[in-house]
Amino acid sequence: MPESSDIITELNLRSKVEPIAEFLDMNLVELSPGYAKVTMHVKQEYQNFNNLSFGGIIMAVADQAFAYASNSTSFPSIASQFNIHFISGANINDKLVAECKVIRSGRRVGISEITVINQDNKLIAKATGTTIPISQNK
Amino acid sequence: MPESSDIITELNLRSKVEPIAEFLDMNLVELSPGYAKVTMHVKQEYQNFNNLSFGGIIMAVADQAFAYASNSTSFPSIASQFNIHFISGANINDKLVAECKVIRSGRRVGISEITVINQDNKLIAKATGTTIPISQNK
Amino acid sequence: MPESSDIITELNLRSKVEPIAEFLDMNLVELSPGYAKVTMHVKQEYQNFNNLSFGGIIMAVADQAFAYASNSTSFPSIASQFNIHFISGANINDKLVAECKVIRSGRRVGISEITVINQDNKLIAKATGTTIPISQNK
Amino acid sequence: MPESSDIITELNLRSKVEPIAEFLDMNLVELSPGYAKVTMHVKQEYQNFNNLSFGGIIMAVADQAFAYASNSTSFPSIASQFNIHFISGANINDKLVAECKVIRSGRRVGISEITVINQDNKLIAKATGTTIPISQNK
Repeated sequence: MPESSDIITELNLRSKVEPIAEFLDMNLVELSPGYAKVTMHVKQEYQNFNNLSFGGIIMAVADQAFAYASNSTSFPSIASQFNIHFISGANINDKLVAECKVIRSGRRVGISEITVINQDNKLIAKATGTTIPISQNK
Repeated sequence: MPESSDIITELNLRSKVEPIAEFLDMNLVELSPGYAKVTMHVKQEYQNFNNLSFGGIIMAVADQAFAYASNSTSFPSIASQFNIHFISGANINDKLVAECKVIRSGRRVGISEITVINQDNKLIAKATGTTIPISQNK
Repeated sequence: MPESSDIITELNLRSKVEPIAEFLDMNLVELSPGYAKVTMHVKQEYQNFNNLSFGGIIMAVADQAFAYASNSTSFPSIASQFNIHFISGANINDKLVAECKVIRSGRRVGISEITVINQDNKLIAKATGTTIPISQNK
Repeated sequence: MPESSDIITELNLRSKVEPIAEFLDMNLVELSPGYAKVTMHVKQEYQNFNNLSFGGIIMAVADQAFAYASNSTSFPSIASQFNIHFISGANINDKLVAECKVIRSGRRVGISEITVINQDNKLIAKATGTTIPISQNK
């Protein structure tokens, strides 16, 4: 099992060259054991057939914070389940901020909470998720 | 309230020029009242820091089928909640197929089920979601 | 639409004679607009086939706080969806405390968060739920 | 790891003397690897403050089917997460039937689907859940 500080360093390095982060314009701006903050610029391309921002994009930024936070305590971990409540819509050009806190980090399962707000601190979504550490038997 | 066939026609037209569909390489391939099928080509850009396909991308294709199916019965509707279970990972170059069925379509709330498989019929994810019709008082 | 203070008074009265509250030994101990606290004594009868406290009992006390809190802001409301993460097991003779806060109360949909702890402040479960106000068109 | 048929026999024996099953009037009526069916008689005592059947009771019968089905493939397993959509209300004296199918049974995580209907085949609720096998390292 690598040390916590080594995991944080490794994840920060990987985040600089992560294809999906660049493609979706997401940035990991803070990472500590059990916590991650990710920002995303809502681009024109994210508009859906109702002329609103696509819900899947809000899920994506929430999932990115979830992935970094849960891997910061048990690396590597994979997501098994994710539940989100959409509270307000996001607009084109919004800057979304997703924060994830791991509330339970165990040998067999982890549980996290995620909040997404916009640049005006408006609550956009709240989510929770389940992760499974996959290196436990090494 | 528009007629069902008018809604289907309108949604099909909108799907042809939907920014997020083009951006994420998703195609609406089937739409009928209470049902939608969407395909997505998993691109190299969707890779995450673990060299796996980003979970948010699987959520995106599921959400796209969910959006079309739920709007096919109550247009317009907005998503309020979405829960997904990740079952197998997706690989780069996979062709994902997301199918959504509306299992309850009411005046105040709709409930849908979504399945995501890959080109080999392997189960990738299952999800459920809640939608709220927003034109009920018109 | 009744006034907020009238709803609280009415719900407090109903809680005194609620069959399920007596049957499961649950008590509404605090109620204000958007907030409810419910306690439950975990009885011997709640043991399951694994000699643990039945998970459905933890859901029950969480659901009871959820029901009171969500009805305190939009009465009557019905639950549409509920998602729970089990964090620690409950033991026979535990005194569980479920707190629910409504985080979004709208004309068409409400969203709530619930926390269940035991008498030692140990976190037992966290949940979220969706409610639908049903008197909006009256 | 015990054999599948031994687990089924053991669970069937335990179900006969399970305190919560007797207390809530639930019966395990069918059990095979990855599948369980549980019935429940909705008693007068399950009425809530809105004169409806308490939502937690619907969760309880769903959870009971979930517990037996998930333990039938990986014994013992514990529930980590459970998400339910309430579709129709249950009435006093209804006979509810909850069926659970395990859709993914792995060494580290299991995923199940549950359906609750009443005596008239009316859909009452649908749920999904996550379980964690706890004997994997023995």
